[in-house]
Amino acid sequence: MLRLLALVAATTSWTPPRPIRTATILRAAPPHPSLGSLTLVGAGPGDPELLTIAALRAIADSEALVICDRLVSPEIRELVRGELRVAGKMPGCAEKAQQQIYEWCREGLVDGRRVVRLKIGDPFVFGRGGEEVLERRERLGVEARVVPGVSSCLAAPLAAGVPVTHRGSAHQTLVSTGYGRGNSSSPELPPYDPMRTVVLLMAVGRLRSIAEDCVTSQNFPPDCPALVVEQAATPRQRTVLGDLSDIADLAALHAIKAPATVVFGDAVRALHQGVAHGLIDLPEPTGASPVIDVRHAGVARPRALDVAETLRLSTP
Amino acid sequence: MLRLLALVAATTSWTPPRPIRTATILRAAPPHPSLGSLTLVGAGPGDPELLTIAALRAIADSEALVICDRLVSPEIRELVRGELRVAGKMPGCAEKAQQQIYEWCREGLVDGRRVVRLKIGDPFVFGRGGEEVLERRERLGVEARVVPGVSSCLAAPLAAGVPVTHRGSAHQTLVSTGYGRGNSSSPELPPYDPMRTVVLLMAVGRLRSIAEDCVTSQNFPPDCPALVVEQAATPRQRTVLGDLSDIADLAALHAIKAPATVVFGDAVRALHQGVAHGLIDLPEPTGASPVIDVRHAGVARPRALDVAETLRLSTP
Repeated sequence: MLRLLALVAATTSWTPPRPIRTATILRAAPPHPSLGSLTLVGAGPGDPELLTIAALRAIADSEALVICDRLVSPEIRELVRGELRVAGKMPGCAEKAQQQIYEWCREGLVDGRRVVRLKIGDPFVFGRGGEEVLERRERLGVEARVVPGVSSCLAAPLAAGVPVTHRGSAHQTLVSTGYGRGNSSSPELPPYDPMRTVVLLMAVGRLRSIAEDCVTSQNFPPDCPALVVEQAATPRQRTVLGDLSDIADLAALHAIKAPATVVFGDAVRALHQGVAHGLIDLPEPTGASPVIDVRHAGVARPRALDVAETLRLSTP
Repeated sequence: MLRLLALVAATTSWTPPRPIRTATILRAAPPHPSLGSLTLVGAGPGDPELLTIAALRAIADSEALVICDRLVSPEIRELVRGELRVAGKMPGCAEKAQQQIYEWCREGLVDGRRVVRLKIGDPFVFGRGGEEVLERRERLGVEARVVPGVSSCLAAPLAAGVPVTHRGSAHQTLVSTGYGRGNSSSPELPPYDPMRTVVLLMAVGRLRSIAEDCVTSQNFPPDCPALVVEQAATPRQRTVLGDLSDIADLAALHAIKAPATVVFGDAVRALHQGVAHGLIDLPEPTGASPVIDVRHAGVARPRALDVAETLRLSTP
């Protein structure tokens, strides 16, 4: 039976026996009891400390098949207790890796296993998580559970000391990739609003043209504060502060490379008042936890606790 | 000495002995060794399962003074092992509660304690976290550590089955409050972009005028998909699906109330294809974990694990 299902599922034109198109999809059961379950889990920016309890439970399940790509940090991969498969998602071969991930998920599902698809950040923010939900729904009729995670689009600015909203500076935040519809063009940013923070992911390679476009086409002032944070929330984090007129030069001067997050807007300066343009932090000493420290107050990281016991306290 | 510091700190015109205005603020030490430390911690949307490991460590520290408001769920408050103080942050008395929180923080700091300021969601997303960092810096010279959390602005759409970015539907996400600069006006939303998801917090009370403004002033099509999720990621979650022309009527029909999150854009329909306008889910049965389930695949929640042991595995 399982082999038959696998064969059927492998046929792309296969129609799920019970397409889930009801108003109560949240209660939909799997189409066949022998099929396994699929959970999309957000892993956060990379530090295991920023995993959610739910994510930790999912990946520490010794019977689970955990599937991730190379974007998930080695420190988090080490927490996996069951079977771990890592797809070769590298620049240039994303599509091939995605197909491999789909195939592994399908294998686990038809074998009746608990499949955990671990994704960096949040599964529904620039993570193709929606596509993975649809793929499994349409091909196998399986509805994925989705566990949110800490998204870099908010955690990277935080790690660089930027509150993306701040009274008097920003009451809106726009998150975008660094490219537009054509994949080669600039992102279609809305006209400047002094009360809006703009966060750009995957934008460092075209920072100069984006900053110029903002000033020449979208009415941003050249002295609008701008910041680039490289490898945010890792021990290798570096942050460059400037404005739209010089941020591209500063990023080039300090050889800032991907992965990096770009932030434009007055909120950039909310906690960085009076700081000169340029590099504003340095790599952290080994053993520190810059991930969860915007600033260090000289406090030692607390030692490991009996978290399981703590969790039990919350159970009625 | 402590009393003196307390007295000095209580004077609003007090100038910190070492104002932190250098390019290496990330390495700044507290101005006085006897002062305690302050950590702003994001508690996520409310389910303890969505706490980060770092947050759990911070609040499970038996020597910490944990300060929160009533927005932090009782389930999370139960995890606090040390002293817990809950400010009366209720509608109408937010400013008074904020002053109480500042006062408690100051007391803890001058007593040399580890102060944990626990905030719902992420401290730097609509949480006045930046203000709290500034307040402590300016009044006591103490630099807060900040621990990011899962923000409802992304987790609420996820819990309602909406990927805020989705290939072909959305490559930008705008997050805003439901009010504009005057606090009584509509939010200043940018003109319609078919590839942008709009997420509005604190907007359900003026949903009708916002939806109308979008259509009449900002070029949104009346059939732009719209969704409201009430008490997202709790057992009481309810979700109403419609479009800009009927979402206010539908929300009124089903008596949707705050706290609720509003989402506009094609991404609303990415995983809800063919679903009729109206209420699309129901309250969850007790004991389920809707927080971390967009859809239920009939999988039991894994039992409590020895998380501490799992954490140890990741320590080199």
